[in-house]
Amino acid sequence: MHIESESADKPALQLDFRTAPDDYRHWSISVDGPVATLIMAVDEKSPAAEGYELKLNSYDVGVDIELYDAVQRLRFEHPEVRAVVITSGIDGMFCAGANIRMLGTSSHSHKVNFCKFTNETRNSIEDASHHSGQVYIAALNGTAAGGGYELALATEYLMLIDDGNAAVSLPEVPLLAVLPGTGGLTRVVDKRMVRRDLADVFCTVEEGVKGQRAIDWRLIDETVPRSKFAARVTEKAREIAAESDRPEGEPGIKLERLERAQTENEIRYPFVAVTLNRVERNATIEIQAPESDAPDDMRSVQEQGVDFWPLAVTRALDDALLHLRFNEPALGTLIIKTSGDGSRIAAYDALLGGNQDNWLIREILLYIQRTFKRLDVTSRTTFAFVEPGSCFVGMLADLLFAVDRSYMLDGQLDQRPGPTIRLTNLNFGALLMANGLTRLETRFIGDSDSLETAKQLIGQDLDAQAALEAGLITYAPDDIDWEDELRLLLEERASFSPDALTGMEANLRFAGPETLETKIFGRLSAWQNWIFQRPNAAGESGALKLYGTGKRAKYDRGRV
Amino acid sequence: MHIESESADKPALQLDFRTAPDDYRHWSISVDGPVATLIMAVDEKSPAAEGYELKLNSYDVGVDIELYDAVQRLRFEHPEVRAVVITSGIDGMFCAGANIRMLGTSSHSHKVNFCKFTNETRNSIEDASHHSGQVYIAALNGTAAGGGYELALATEYLMLIDDGNAAVSLPEVPLLAVLPGTGGLTRVVDKRMVRRDLADVFCTVEEGVKGQRAIDWRLIDETVPRSKFAARVTEKAREIAAESDRPEGEPGIKLERLERAQTENEIRYPFVAVTLNRVERNATIEIQAPESDAPDDMRSVQEQGVDFWPLAVTRALDDALLHLRFNEPALGTLIIKTSGDGSRIAAYDALLGGNQDNWLIREILLYIQRTFKRLDVTSRTTFAFVEPGSCFVGMLADLLFAVDRSYMLDGQLDQRPGPTIRLTNLNFGALLMANGLTRLETRFIGDSDSLETAKQLIGQDLDAQAALEAGLITYAPDDIDWEDELRLLLEERASFSPDALTGMEANLRFAGPETLETKIFGRLSAWQNWIFQRPNAAGESGALKLYGTGKRAKYDRGRV
Repeated sequence: MHIESESADKPALQLDFRTAPDDYRHWSISVDGPVATLIMAVDEKSPAAEGYELKLNSYDVGVDIELYDAVQRLRFEHPEVRAVVITSGIDGMFCAGANIRMLGTSSHSHKVNFCKFTNETRNSIEDASHHSGQVYIAALNGTAAGGGYELALATEYLMLIDDGNAAVSLPEVPLLAVLPGTGGLTRVVDKRMVRRDLADVFCTVEEGVKGQRAIDWRLIDETVPRSKFAARVTEKAREIAAESDRPEGEPGIKLERLERAQTENEIRYPFVAVTLNRVERNATIEIQAPESDAPDDMRSVQEQGVDFWPLAVTRALDDALLHLRFNEPALGTLIIKTSGDGSRIAAYDALLGGNQDNWLIREILLYIQRTFKRLDVTSRTTFAFVEPGSCFVGMLADLLFAVDRSYMLDGQLDQRPGPTIRLTNLNFGALLMANGLTRLETRFIGDSDSLETAKQLIGQDLDAQAALEAGLITYAPDDIDWEDELRLLLEERASFSPDALTGMEANLRFAGPETLETKIFGRLSAWQNWIFQRPNAAGESGALKLYGTGKRAKYDRGRV
Repeated sequence: MHIESESADKPALQLDFRTAPDDYRHWSISVDGPVATLIMAVDEKSPAAEGYELKLNSYDVGVDIELYDAVQRLRFEHPEVRAVVITSGIDGMFCAGANIRMLGTSSHSHKVNFCKFTNETRNSIEDASHHSGQVYIAALNGTAAGGGYELALATEYLMLIDDGNAAVSLPEVPLLAVLPGTGGLTRVVDKRMVRRDLADVFCTVEEGVKGQRAIDWRLIDETVPRSKFAARVTEKAREIAAESDRPEGEPGIKLERLERAQTENEIRYPFVAVTLNRVERNATIEIQAPESDAPDDMRSVQEQGVDFWPLAVTRALDDALLHLRFNEPALGTLIIKTSGDGSRIAAYDALLGGNQDNWLIREILLYIQRTFKRLDVTSRTTFAFVEPGSCFVGMLADLLFAVDRSYMLDGQLDQRPGPTIRLTNLNFGALLMANGLTRLETRFIGDSDSLETAKQLIGQDLDAQAALEAGLITYAPDDIDWEDELRLLLEERASFSPDALTGMEANLRFAGPETLETKIFGRLSAWQNWIFQRPNAAGESGALKLYGTGKRAKYDRGRV
């Protein structure tokens, strides 16, 4: 089926983000001691939608889903892997970037979400390199063009084969009238720190740059003659692997296929249930507390594997967010709820916090962090409703600070006691936003007193009044107002322009410092979204539509 | 005349940015010792274009041009002014923000440029408060809505009259489906540090917030009962004025009307000439060196007034950039050239650098800084061509680092000696970009060796090879290639999509740290530009078009 046109309530292309190496069509993983190699050999006959072929190792969201899965598996299933080489299985072409026919025929919505997911995967590659001791290297055994070079930029070391042909390039501006928007421009000047005028030249030269000039301009780190390429890549990978703090002789945990039961209006995972309200255009994500006590030691954690509650919850939440983003664009508001015994969560938090040096706990914490970041950048309104029987404790309490607004019942609705929330140490350091701050630091930016007060409340069960006073929730309606207030809130939100809300939320969520990640999501993506709307790129005579037809795009020459 | 439709080569609405208090229709300035008051009383019958009335102290670019002029005059003409109160001449309404009919009937291009200019003026207000000892206060004697509140946010202290009605509000999202995009969202969370969930509430409440809640949420600093308002504003202004380091008993310098001679393809100012090439769609800005030696002392500087070369050049460049931006949108490339005796400039630079504590020199340096920032955020390609007879020295050399690329002739074209460039101390601290770094620091980010090397070259005349080696220019073609290379460069640039270039340039120019200013221009503006393109706002059934007609906008509900 074709990728849907704009504004389909439910796109015909329904994506499943669950996959496994045996099902990969485009990537393969090989592991040789401390070095893993990810080989991209895109099957051009297996695009995610109809209407294009994935020639020259170009990619679409289907290729990206496999890459994301591979990056996750290397982290969890392969504690022994300390360096990851990304290379191509196609001679002379590392990767040609995002498939242009796919971009030309996609809806604006699909293009934007595709770019966001691709950016997130690249950030997860950098996260592995910087925080997991699993450092990525790009072995460019052929040309890396456009998104292909952007993928290479997400690694820490770029080696380019010296065969007289292979080059790195970002030809989007001259060829397609769009930006190298999956991190490219930002990584060129802010990560590689390429001088801005040289970056300007590089981004307008279709054929790219190679050899010593590519090194001088900081675009790559090394060129290697064809005859020595494989050996030099292995040598470099082993050298980098030797610096890693990944463990020796520990078993990994297998990322079993995520269980998911799906009906028209409900998706059920272990510990997470998503209810879709198509009439009111919202979705409720309810996260359940663990059903048993936290394990006593790391051996038990290891044995539980993907059933270990924090990991199970995170996998489900990750999948739910991606599903909602791509498959349910009409549901404009996400409501987070929780249920169950919060005191159990505190014990899990203590286990996580007390074992941050353990490789597996580190991976789990980083995965929670990445998944919560996906919520931060989601282009939906996010609310949290704190009801009786809920368990916004520690890790789950962080969701109160991730959402746009939180509402907590002040009192009781039935015989159950009024809800409480509880902070743990996890809210004060382990889970950072893209801006490098915790969600509480961002919430209380410029208000260190409130941050200090919140710290003093760690471990206390706070009722609605106490939470309101501490600035931890937005509103605390009482039992009489509760139902009406939430109903009006959801109705009001659904009445606003989705575009204006997306822009507003993106600007209010990230106070404070900027990082590579916030620049990519806040600046580069916003510009790309703008350009994706412009006739010069996406119109019937735009460059994206006409590429490959032999016709030249006709541009409106006015500068804006 | 109406504001032009998209893509007019030359908009029918030609703006003149030169004005003076005697010609103001919307603002008045009154000065009482150390406190000046800027009173906004918009003449609703005097819009900049036809088709709308400026009711309720709403503004358009004509109102903004006067405000910009007033801010400039207070700085230069009134050294005695240490606090500036912005207030309204209309009872019960401080300012209703940008005129909605104007936005609804404007082209995308005009909306974007109008927002940019408005943002720059607000940044210049903050610049005066933070660096000039002329601190702005908002005396909100009525409601400040939308852009009206955004204007207030540009001041350092917000006082709201407590009359039971007056409120502050940002109703753009619910009413108009656009963002509070002239700095509003960014200033709310990053300057005022309003908690993000409260900011979310505030930006969706049409009627706004007032009273103690507005203080508690950090939206304002103080409320004052009507009976005490005037007295309290004066008291506060005098209190703030007392902290200023502005001089006592010094005369100001009069900002005489800027001389400008304009023909179809040329604009001539003192020391600046602009040549418009409509066929090749570019403009050349040639800046001339001083014609006499730098004055010996501050008294002479004062006497020269607006004829003092650095000030004269800056005023002309400022006007030229604004003129090109609004009145000549089809000219996509700006070429900077210089001519004259560069050694004279070095003497001026020494005079500026040696008198940074003098209030007037400080103003001139800050004005150069603001004007060069206008070049940084211009949505045109910028090149510098260094030819024989040029004088890229010090202050003018900084333009080499402001542009996207620079080309310097290596050798001679005629009998004249090959060109040289020269750095001065001014390139290493006095002129900061919006990111808080000098242009050389940004250029050499992550390459401190090159920055250090450049410092060692201060005062030396560098030929093309030396400049190239030091990384100070992009390319150094020789005399044989020079003409062809520049011709091809301009042709190539003119062949690219203007939108893609604008997005690319905006992402490559600001490596390094982010500030309030870069967030406003890079993030908020990019989102607003996107929203200005979306049918939900700007379409025939969009909120911006239908506002005031009684019809409700119909939104496409899909989130992107």
